[in-house]
Amino acid sequence: MTEKLPTLVVASHNTGKITEFERILSAWWRIQPQATLGVTAIPETGLSFIENAMLKARHACRETGKAALADDSGLVVPALGGAPGLYSARYSGAGDAANNALLLQNMRALRGERREAFYIAVLVLMHGPEDPAPIVTEGRWYGHIADAPRGHHGFGYDPLFIPQGETRHAAELNHEEKDRMSHRGMAVTQLLKRCRE
Amino acid sequence: MTEKLPTLVVASHNTGKITEFERILSAWWRIQPQATLGVTAIPETGLSFIENAMLKARHACRETGKAALADDSGLVVPALGGAPGLYSARYSGAGDAANNALLLQNMRALRGERREAFYIAVLVLMHGPEDPAPIVTEGRWYGHIADAPRGHHGFGYDPLFIPQGETRHAAELNHEEKDRMSHRGMAVTQLLKRCRE
Repeated sequence: MTEKLPTLVVASHNTGKITEFERILSAWWRIQPQATLGVTAIPETGLSFIENAMLKARHACRETGKAALADDSGLVVPALGGAPGLYSARYSGAGDAANNALLLQNMRALRGERREAFYIAVLVLMHGPEDPAPIVTEGRWYGHIADAPRGHHGFGYDPLFIPQGETRHAAELNHEEKDRMSHRGMAVTQLLKRCRE
Repeated sequence: MTEKLPTLVVASHNTGKITEFERILSAWWRIQPQATLGVTAIPETGLSFIENAMLKARHACRETGKAALADDSGLVVPALGGAPGLYSARYSGAGDAANNALLLQNMRALRGERREAFYIAVLVLMHGPEDPAPIVTEGRWYGHIADAPRGHHGFGYDPLFIPQGETRHAAELNHEEKDRMSHRGMAVTQLLKRCRE
């Protein structure tokens, strides 16, 4: 069976994401991480999440001659001018714990007025480097930034992010709960729906 | 009331589209066509609809300092390698009737095997030139290409496009029917839903 499926290259080096894509999309595609084809990461020079996802997907298509799936995601705090935003993973330059500490510090400087934030994930499925109509899906997870971190699940800013309608921090949700609510969960669900069409 | 609404620049010079956006979005925004602010069209050099819509929205944001809405749309025929695609409006270089004639001629060369096609419309609402998370919505209208044109409503390739589940050509639908089914109708409905969020 598997040999008959078309190959979909995943333009990511994050094992967690690759596994998630594989679980959901393996009925339609044979999932192949770009690293297994010798494709390396490119600089993310876009001005928006969608442009970065487009850059990554196109690069993977060009290098492999196959269809490719890319994602880009981050946390946006409007009161901080959109930061950490595109630079969510490299905000402090020193990993998740330091990123969370820097975010808290910058929130304190605002004197707690506007704590709204959202996580965003954009997925791009491109059939070739000049595909005029790549499939683009997006999920946003609205909430606000807490005064102090809590929880040990998840990654990124999950210890500081309290989703709308929740009292728990995102890092206190288990994987299934997070997948059901999260920005990435929504974007992947939509991608699946679009593939079925 | 109106003075309190934020201004949304529409990066389009098409009166029909501007009127449609105004009708639907005027509860949230004061709609202002970019031409009234002295902004002229820019070359659409993107490799995809979404990149062209991003280019147009960003240009309008940069020139006006305000939020901007842009759209890009076209007809994609997979059996023709995606043509007319990004070049839908300028396929023949001589307007709608000549574009339709050229499409028919190119379909004949395929000997009628694969006549599937889809219309696509992508909308981008950008809050500023460096908005990391512009709102992007998309509509696709699936169908196939007829052997001969029929109908006098609509524009573009509507005389040749038979929507899925229809026996009538798109150019035989009245405006309300078309808005309810069409790629642009879907994209605008989604944009409205996203603005309400």
